[in-house]
Amino acid sequence: MPSYSAPTRDMQFILHDVMNITASDIPGYGELNRDFTGAILDEAGKLAENVLAPLNAVGDRQGCRLENGVVRTPDGFKAAYGKMRAAGWMGLDANPDYGGQGMPYLLHIATGEIFVSANMAFNMYLGLTHGAIAAIHTHGSDAQKALYLPPMIEGSWSGTMNLTEPQCGTDLGLIRTKAEPKEDGSYKISGQKIWISAGEHDLTDNIIHLVLAKIPGGPEGVKGISLFIVPKVLVNDDGSPGARNTLSCGGLEQKMGIHGNATCVMNYDGATGYLVGEMHKGMRAMFTMMNEARLGVGLQGYAQGVVAYQNALTFAQDRLQGRAVTGAEAPGKPADPIIVHPDVRRNLMDQKAFVEGARAFAFWGASLIDRARRSDDAEADALISLLIPVLKGFLTDKGFETTVLAQQTLGGSGFTRDWGLEQFVRDARITMIYEGTNGIQSLDLVGRKLGLNGGKTVMGFFDLLKTFLRENEDNTALKTGFLDPLKAASKDLQSAAIYFMQNLKNPNAALSGSYDFMHLFGHVCLGLMWARMARASMAALAAGDTDIAFHETKIATGRHYMARLLPATGLHLARITSGPQTVMELEAANF
Amino acid sequence: MPSYSAPTRDMQFILHDVMNITASDIPGYGELNRDFTGAILDEAGKLAENVLAPLNAVGDRQGCRLENGVVRTPDGFKAAYGKMRAAGWMGLDANPDYGGQGMPYLLHIATGEIFVSANMAFNMYLGLTHGAIAAIHTHGSDAQKALYLPPMIEGSWSGTMNLTEPQCGTDLGLIRTKAEPKEDGSYKISGQKIWISAGEHDLTDNIIHLVLAKIPGGPEGVKGISLFIVPKVLVNDDGSPGARNTLSCGGLEQKMGIHGNATCVMNYDGATGYLVGEMHKGMRAMFTMMNEARLGVGLQGYAQGVVAYQNALTFAQDRLQGRAVTGAEAPGKPADPIIVHPDVRRNLMDQKAFVEGARAFAFWGASLIDRARRSDDAEADALISLLIPVLKGFLTDKGFETTVLAQQTLGGSGFTRDWGLEQFVRDARITMIYEGTNGIQSLDLVGRKLGLNGGKTVMGFFDLLKTFLRENEDNTALKTGFLDPLKAASKDLQSAAIYFMQNLKNPNAALSGSYDFMHLFGHVCLGLMWARMARASMAALAAGDTDIAFHETKIATGRHYMARLLPATGLHLARITSGPQTVMELEAANF
Repeated sequence: MPSYSAPTRDMQFILHDVMNITASDIPGYGELNRDFTGAILDEAGKLAENVLAPLNAVGDRQGCRLENGVVRTPDGFKAAYGKMRAAGWMGLDANPDYGGQGMPYLLHIATGEIFVSANMAFNMYLGLTHGAIAAIHTHGSDAQKALYLPPMIEGSWSGTMNLTEPQCGTDLGLIRTKAEPKEDGSYKISGQKIWISAGEHDLTDNIIHLVLAKIPGGPEGVKGISLFIVPKVLVNDDGSPGARNTLSCGGLEQKMGIHGNATCVMNYDGATGYLVGEMHKGMRAMFTMMNEARLGVGLQGYAQGVVAYQNALTFAQDRLQGRAVTGAEAPGKPADPIIVHPDVRRNLMDQKAFVEGARAFAFWGASLIDRARRSDDAEADALISLLIPVLKGFLTDKGFETTVLAQQTLGGSGFTRDWGLEQFVRDARITMIYEGTNGIQSLDLVGRKLGLNGGKTVMGFFDLLKTFLRENEDNTALKTGFLDPLKAASKDLQSAAIYFMQNLKNPNAALSGSYDFMHLFGHVCLGLMWARMARASMAALAAGDTDIAFHETKIATGRHYMARLLPATGLHLARITSGPQTVMELEAANF
Repeated sequence: MPSYSAPTRDMQFILHDVMNITASDIPGYGELNRDFTGAILDEAGKLAENVLAPLNAVGDRQGCRLENGVVRTPDGFKAAYGKMRAAGWMGLDANPDYGGQGMPYLLHIATGEIFVSANMAFNMYLGLTHGAIAAIHTHGSDAQKALYLPPMIEGSWSGTMNLTEPQCGTDLGLIRTKAEPKEDGSYKISGQKIWISAGEHDLTDNIIHLVLAKIPGGPEGVKGISLFIVPKVLVNDDGSPGARNTLSCGGLEQKMGIHGNATCVMNYDGATGYLVGEMHKGMRAMFTMMNEARLGVGLQGYAQGVVAYQNALTFAQDRLQGRAVTGAEAPGKPADPIIVHPDVRRNLMDQKAFVEGARAFAFWGASLIDRARRSDDAEADALISLLIPVLKGFLTDKGFETTVLAQQTLGGSGFTRDWGLEQFVRDARITMIYEGTNGIQSLDLVGRKLGLNGGKTVMGFFDLLKTFLRENEDNTALKTGFLDPLKAASKDLQSAAIYFMQNLKNPNAALSGSYDFMHLFGHVCLGLMWARMARASMAALAAGDTDIAFHETKIATGRHYMARLLPATGLHLARITSGPQTVMELEAANF
């Protein structure tokens, strides 16, 4: 059985030593002092370690069962959900007007990492509700907000997102689900949606489905899509439950992982739905939620890496095989723990350097979302929009890779079910696919975000890098290990951007390199994070912080990232500038 | 349901256009003309496509069941095994003196790829027997060979390898299984072995276990290990079945993949065993089989990539989503097939370029084993010993990666069980672990093989590269796309080797870079393979070969490898030369 321990110390370091959040001018951040965030993270940690983590394997083995139209979640899920709800975790960052606690989104992300590491499939039930709350909050009418938000924020109702249909995943223009206007202003929703996470389950009294559908006579393609609230149980004006709506779960998907979460075929048979926001503007409504949803998936990716790494480390410290090449380190034992072997360490350090850098990146992203929203800061909004495909694509690709590395640390044990590593691999795998495949993320980055505000946003990111390098150029301790490699990596990123600009007339040139560009970008971001973290640890040591081992370890881990992972930027640049020829050359039939 | 089509055309190209095997001086190769190998590959293909591939998902879903000590294989496995046996596939490359067909090992590898792509878990039952046959053939007495080999080669008996115990996987010096001499010259074997593939099943009348055990009073550690034949059913001198031996399957491992193959806990309760070869020389006996066993696992890795790629390609050609950025390519359809999108192509080309290069590498490796064995060529033997860890480690890492890439091509469908891609990922994952984890392969490469024959062997490999480059330096068509990148990659490999030599006094320097060195080496090998293949295709075109599309596709695919995958050598070199500091710095407790 794998174990999990919430990395609250590392989180506090990022929040306070690196980001110094209490000094931030983002509204609400001033109150987030070390004791306060410590208390919140500790509470989340206890719940995660004691309640959620032990259910992770249970959920995987039992999966969900569809019985007479009702989905039964795995044993223990309902009780655990009750505890999450009682503790108020669903409303942590929700609007107090509707019963939320009004905390910054950053805290939702920090505690979210803890919950997701402990039990990703379970936490998806809450994650989907969080997204649905955001959608209704942003686009719903006052009446809709008053009716639906309080029970969702309180946790007695949950939410879903219904986009995909059998003939359309990425290309939502092909949607066939129909929404016909009724005389009372509501709509009659008919169609089939697939891959609906948490589409049906037994955790809540009601499920509020958000459904993309087309109103007949509207524009073709994505411009004719509208967004609807379609409750499982219709809700009377006073909030009391009405009739059962004509929608049902038609089947559960058999899948590689996240077995504890019900992935449903949803059939809408003339179900009653209510338009959210403007007619035909459903895609715009979806897009405004996308930043949070995608950051949330990026978080899932690295969070699986976090728990996988923890278990790989424990195994490497315990398992006795062979002797250190430089002489026995545990002569009293039949063999040394495998962590003495350089290649085992190489593997562990690669894992550690990624997950800690990823956390800093995700927290930074969350703070940008807070700044954009709470300070109405358009520049922060543009920057996070630029970074979102990187946060989603890079953190999930590398998060998955980290679970595979961690599994490898365990040798044969990693392949067996008992040790649990193989579940982290299977669960992490979906993060590279859903909420827009990582290929789509790279297309979004290169095709849409690079040109944001006429390129000003990406130039702003480059300025941010330059400013950091300039501000620290006298920091000799930081130079060789951090600033020099970051400068080299930034140069690779800029060269790639220049290559794209020089080939604007051939869109295939950029699109053949988009995936590598996303990774190149991700590495530069993590390089920046590590330079910031190393600077913070050096400053803490200089200021007499007594947790010397913590900071020295942080700096050493950062050096590992800069020396051994960051140089990947050169490979990605080489792939990009090799051009589109070899990618586009073959006829489809000749592959 | 995934499908599979045996790549016989590609195999024929490697065997005849690239390797020109009939002109080889390796005994037995002269008879392998195009018609003959074509007929063999076609037969294997039919069996694989029609019988084995349809059972792949069945095996995954049903798994094996242990019932009262008997293991039941999945529905259809026994009938399929009967067909394989009836067609004589078990004895393809076995000694005719014992009923084999005496074909070169190369043909075993070529047909093996086909069988493994179709159904890896099923083919493991045969693969284990193949290894046991080789062990008995090489190290058994004449009487043992006469008694055990004919029914194993005929397929009515199968074989296994028993190495691992709960406290020892990699470090076999820790073995506790005991072999006590009995008066009749046999031994009493007592102990528990775990992770024994095909340890118990219902496909054959008898199972011949090869077991590593220690004879009391022998040397400590690996020097005191002996190898024993321990049959499930004892065999009388006339070959007739005797008493049931006191060994049993104590449990089946629950694991991530290869569910169709029984992974057994084997209990030896004073079972009767017979010494194979010399006392205490069991490790040496295992080592002589290791080249074949490891090449076989490397083959499993890329073979899963082959079938995964085939299915990704079909999906990409069929699935309609979005429009080509340069204008609709299927205007009559609701959307274009996704293969029009550059990033989908980038992904497919990376898959294709790897699996085709990997096949050439595996076939080359097999021919070196044939040369070493059939021509008693010590140089070929040394070269294949050098290449084996690369064949195993690189082809399985990249083979697994290819299944993940292929799964990604399918988007959400790739995560569902129906499409079968997720099974290829789960099955391929074990290849990076068993038969020596890939970390151990890299240790073998750097710690043992680089110094083989005082470094002469690796110098011989460099000479081989140089000779190829020199012989083709006037080939202008080959220069930019193939020779130049191969030269650059070779230089990276040599720089890494020089770095290791310069740091001989610090073994951690080499061992911290061993994994990257293995990948660097693998890329250079595949670069060489692609240069050879491109040369062969160019020559075929120049000679008027009418299959123009085939050869042009081959050259284009090779160019993709050289331009987009081979540059990874630079990254691996950078990681290696960054040195051991960041890998070795942290105390184990501070991770």
